[in-house]
Amino acid sequence: MITEIDINSDLGEGYGNYKAGNDEEVMKYVTTANIACGFHAGDPCIMRKTVELAKRNGVVVGAHPGFPDLMGFGRRKMEISEDDAWCYTIYQVGALKAFLEVAGVELHHVKPHGALYWVLTKDEKLSKVICEAIIKIDPDLPVYWPSPLTEAFPRIATEMGLKAVGELNADTGYTPDGVVAPFREKHAIDLEGVRKRIRQFITEGTVTATNGEVIKKEAQSICAHGDTPNAVDVLKAVRDELKSANISIAPFKKPSSQAKPKSTG
Amino acid sequence: MITEIDINSDLGEGYGNYKAGNDEEVMKYVTTANIACGFHAGDPCIMRKTVELAKRNGVVVGAHPGFPDLMGFGRRKMEISEDDAWCYTIYQVGALKAFLEVAGVELHHVKPHGALYWVLTKDEKLSKVICEAIIKIDPDLPVYWPSPLTEAFPRIATEMGLKAVGELNADTGYTPDGVVAPFREKHAIDLEGVRKRIRQFITEGTVTATNGEVIKKEAQSICAHGDTPNAVDVLKAVRDELKSANISIAPFKKPSSQAKPKSTG
Amino acid sequence: MITEIDINSDLGEGYGNYKAGNDEEVMKYVTTANIACGFHAGDPCIMRKTVELAKRNGVVVGAHPGFPDLMGFGRRKMEISEDDAWCYTIYQVGALKAFLEVAGVELHHVKPHGALYWVLTKDEKLSKVICEAIIKIDPDLPVYWPSPLTEAFPRIATEMGLKAVGELNADTGYTPDGVVAPFREKHAIDLEGVRKRIRQFITEGTVTATNGEVIKKEAQSICAHGDTPNAVDVLKAVRDELKSANISIAPFKKPSSQAKPKSTG
Amino acid sequence: MITEIDINSDLGEGYGNYKAGNDEEVMKYVTTANIACGFHAGDPCIMRKTVELAKRNGVVVGAHPGFPDLMGFGRRKMEISEDDAWCYTIYQVGALKAFLEVAGVELHHVKPHGALYWVLTKDEKLSKVICEAIIKIDPDLPVYWPSPLTEAFPRIATEMGLKAVGELNADTGYTPDGVVAPFREKHAIDLEGVRKRIRQFITEGTVTATNGEVIKKEAQSICAHGDTPNAVDVLKAVRDELKSANISIAPFKKPSSQAKPKSTG
Repeated sequence: MITEIDINSDLGEGYGNYKAGNDEEVMKYVTTANIACGFHAGDPCIMRKTVELAKRNGVVVGAHPGFPDLMGFGRRKMEISEDDAWCYTIYQVGALKAFLEVAGVELHHVKPHGALYWVLTKDEKLSKVICEAIIKIDPDLPVYWPSPLTEAFPRIATEMGLKAVGELNADTGYTPDGVVAPFREKHAIDLEGVRKRIRQFITEGTVTATNGEVIKKEAQSICAHGDTPNAVDVLKAVRDELKSANISIAPFKKPSSQAKPKSTG
Repeated sequence: MITEIDINSDLGEGYGNYKAGNDEEVMKYVTTANIACGFHAGDPCIMRKTVELAKRNGVVVGAHPGFPDLMGFGRRKMEISEDDAWCYTIYQVGALKAFLEVAGVELHHVKPHGALYWVLTKDEKLSKVICEAIIKIDPDLPVYWPSPLTEAFPRIATEMGLKAVGELNADTGYTPDGVVAPFREKHAIDLEGVRKRIRQFITEGTVTATNGEVIKKEAQSICAHGDTPNAVDVLKAVRDELKSANISIAPFKKPSSQAKPKSTG
Repeated sequence: MITEIDINSDLGEGYGNYKAGNDEEVMKYVTTANIACGFHAGDPCIMRKTVELAKRNGVVVGAHPGFPDLMGFGRRKMEISEDDAWCYTIYQVGALKAFLEVAGVELHHVKPHGALYWVLTKDEKLSKVICEAIIKIDPDLPVYWPSPLTEAFPRIATEMGLKAVGELNADTGYTPDGVVAPFREKHAIDLEGVRKRIRQFITEGTVTATNGEVIKKEAQSICAHGDTPNAVDVLKAVRDELKSANISIAPFKKPSSQAKPKSTG
Repeated sequence: MITEIDINSDLGEGYGNYKAGNDEEVMKYVTTANIACGFHAGDPCIMRKTVELAKRNGVVVGAHPGFPDLMGFGRRKMEISEDDAWCYTIYQVGALKAFLEVAGVELHHVKPHGALYWVLTKDEKLSKVICEAIIKIDPDLPVYWPSPLTEAFPRIATEMGLKAVGELNADTGYTPDGVVAPFREKHAIDLEGVRKRIRQFITEGTVTATNGEVIKKEAQSICAHGDTPNAVDVLKAVRDELKSANISIAPFKKPSSQAKPKSTG
C-alpha cells in the first residue's frame, strides 16, 4: 500500500530567449525537479534561475541530461560512443551540480531525457558507462525511470548499486510493454484521464496501455511534463487524487539524505 | 629574486574531430594546464582526456572559461550581461571541476580566455560577478592574468580576496601598456626571442613591448601557448633558460593546498 | 501624403521545439515577413514552414540575418570581422533564398536583426561589406531599416545603389536620436499607444521619442514584432488606423518586381 | 574501358579556428571538391575561402551536406525525420549555392557526408526526400556515391531521374558488401596500397574487400580524403597511376553543363 509519493517534472527546458512551460507555477506543485543541463535544452542562466526557484519552493533537484541536440530537443536518437556517454554525463551533471553547490543545495538524482532514455531502455553498454559516471559523481544518486525497471538502464543501475526509482507518467500513454508512448505534441492533457490513471495506479498498481491492456506499474514518483499547456491543472488533479487517497506527497528519500550531511561545495 | 616559477599552457582546446596543438607533448613540459570548458573550445571527451593526461603528468589543472563562441574560438568580444557572466563561469568551471573530482584531482585556478580576458582588462562589473562566481565555487582559487595586475579583473579579484597570479607570455608580444598583443596567427615562434624574453624577465623583471619600450613585469607563472607549431620547442627553451638561472619549476601554490585536504566531491 | 504602406513582421523566430510568437495568425495581417535564417533564431524546418505560410498568405519574404548567437537571440553585440560579416550574409540570405526558390517565390529584401542592426547604425566598414554581399546576391534587394536613414547602414546602402526602406515600429519606443529603444521584454503592448503612434505618423510624419521629444520619421513600412503576447491585436489596431485614413496596405515594391520576371531557381 | 575519370575530395571541413587537412595543396590535385556546408563541418568564412580556392584551381564544386552534429563531425547516426532531411538539404545546399553564385560558379553535384551517407545506404524514405530536395534545387545535379549504386540512395536517385556517379575511394577499405569501411583514424595512408587499388580498378573494374574478397566496382570518380596526413601524396600516387594508364583526368560532366548556360543567380 502506497502511503507517500514524490511528484516530479522536467523543468528549466527553455533556451536563451525561448521559454518551455511555466516553471514558476509548476514548481509550486512538485516535490522534485529534473533540470536540463544545456545539451538538449537549458542554458547556464536558466539553470541558475531554475535551481534558485526550486530552492525557494523547497523542491529537490535532479539532473536531466540528454543528447547534444538542441535542434531536436534531445528527442532524436544519436549513435554516441561509450566514451561520449560517460563524458556527456559527467559534463552535464557536473555543470548542474555546480549551480546546486553554490546555492547550498544537494544534487538529488539523475533522470535521462528523451531519446537518451529511449536508447537506454535497451542499450546495455551505454547504460553501464552512464551508471559508472553517476557513481563516480555520487553513488547515492537514485536514477528516475518511467518504464519497466527491468529495462537495461534501471536493471544495470540496480546491479551496480544505484537505486532505481520507478515513475508513473500522469500525462502520457504507455505501450503494452510499459514503454512511454512518444510525446511530441503540445496539446492540453485530458484531466479526467489523469485522475483515472492516478486512481488506478493507487488502488491497483497498474496502468492501462494505449491498446487497452492493463499492465503492472511500479512507481515511487509521479511525473507530469512541465511544457503541456495545462501542466498546472494536471498537477492539481494529481495532488487532488493523492490527497483524496490520503497519500502524502514528499520527495523520494535519497539513500544518503539522513545518513550524511549535505555536500555544499 | 625569483627562485621558483610555474609554467602554464592552454590545453584541451580541440573540439570533436578537431585538434589544437600537441597536448600529449606539451603536457610534459608544463606544471599547470588551463583546460577549455566547452564554450570557446573543448568538449566533454576532450576535457576528460586532457584531465587524465594532466594527472598522469603530475600537472595541476585550472579552468579556462571563455565566451560561448566556438566559431570565433572565443576571440570575439560579446556584450554579455552580468547574469550571463556569473552563470557562464559557474557552468564552465563547474563542468571542468566535475571531471577533476571524478579523477581525484583538485581544481587549481581559473584563467579567462581570449576576448573574455580582453573585456575583463577594463570591465569592472563583469570582473566583479565573475570573481563572485569563482569565490562561490572555491575562495582559494587563484586567477591567472597575463597583463598588469592593476587591470580591472586582477585588481577586483585581489580586493575580493582572491590571489591574482601574474603571467609572462613566452610567445606573444606586449603593448606598451603591458597588454597582450592580439594572437591569431599560427606561426612558429622565434626561439631566440623566447630565450631573451625569459632572461630579461629573470634578471630585470621587465619585458620589452612591441614598440621597444621596457616595462615592468610581475609574474609567478610563464605561459606558452599550446597551439603554436613549435610549442614544445618554446617550452624547452623556457625550461632551459630557467634551469641555467637555477630557478626551480613548480606549480604555483594554491593558498589552500597545504592547509586543507583535497576536495574530492 | 502617404497613400500606401507596407506592414512587416519578424517571423520564423522559433528554434527546434521552441516557438516564438503565433506566426500562423500574424501572417494574416502583414504584407511582408522578415524570416530568421538559423543564426540568431530559425532552423531549416521552421524556415520551410514559414516560407510556405507566407506564400499561402500572399506575403512577400525578406531575409532577417543576425549574429551567430542563438543563446543570446542575436541581441548581444559581437565583434565580428568584415570577412565574417560578408560571409554570414551570403550564408544566411543564401539559405533562405534556397527555400524561397524551391517554393517559387522571389526574395524581397534584407533586414538586419537585433544587435547586428545596432552595430550597423554606426559601423561603416561592416555596413559596406554587408551591402556588397547583398548586391552580389541581388542588387535590387531593398534593405529595411527602423531608425534614421542617415545612419551608417542605410546611408551606405543608398550610396551603393540599394534602396533603403524606412520603417516605423508600431510597438517600440524611439530615443530622441530616432534609434529603436531596446526591446527584450515580452509584455503586452498598449494598443491605444499603437493607434496614437500610427495616427501621428500618418498625419504629421513624426514619432514622439521616449523623452517626449517629437522627431521626424520617414517610413514606407510599419513593423510589428511577432513575439509580443498581443501581436495580432497590435496588427489589427495598425490596420484599423490605416484603413480609417484611407491608406492602402501593400508590400513595398521591389525595384525589379515589375521590370523583371521572378527568379525561380 | 575507362578513358577519363574525375578525382574528388572532401574539402572545407575546418571550423572557425580549426583546420582539417591542407586544402590549398589538395585542391591542386583534384578536379572536383565536395565542400562542407556548416552542419558537420565548415563555416561561412571557410565556405567562401574554399569556393574561391576551387575557382582559382579550376575545380568544380559539389555540396557535401551532413547531419547537424559538429561535435561528432557528422559521423554519428541521428534519427532525423523526413521533413528534417528535406529541409537540411535545402538549407545546406542552398547556402553553398549562394557562395558559388556570387563567385560565378555553377553547383556541380551533391555528396552526402559521413553518417548521413551510412543511413542512406538503406533508408529509402530519407533517400527519397533528399532526392526530392536536390531535384527542387536543380534536377541536373548528379549525386556522388562511394559504394554500390544498388543501395537505397543512388537507386532511388536514379529512379527519380538523377545521375548517380560511382566513386572509388583511394584511401579506405571496402567491406565484402562494397560498403565503405568506417574511417575515423587520421593515419598516413599506405601509398603502395593506393597504387594497387587504382591499377586493379583500372584494369579489372574491381576492388579487394577488407576480407580479401574481390568485388566489382563501378566508378566515374576517384575519391581521396583531404584530411589524411599524406593526402597530397595519395593524390599524386592516384594521378601517377592514371597517367601511366593513359586515362585523362577531368571533372565528371554534369548533364546540363553543355546544354545550358551557367546559373549565376
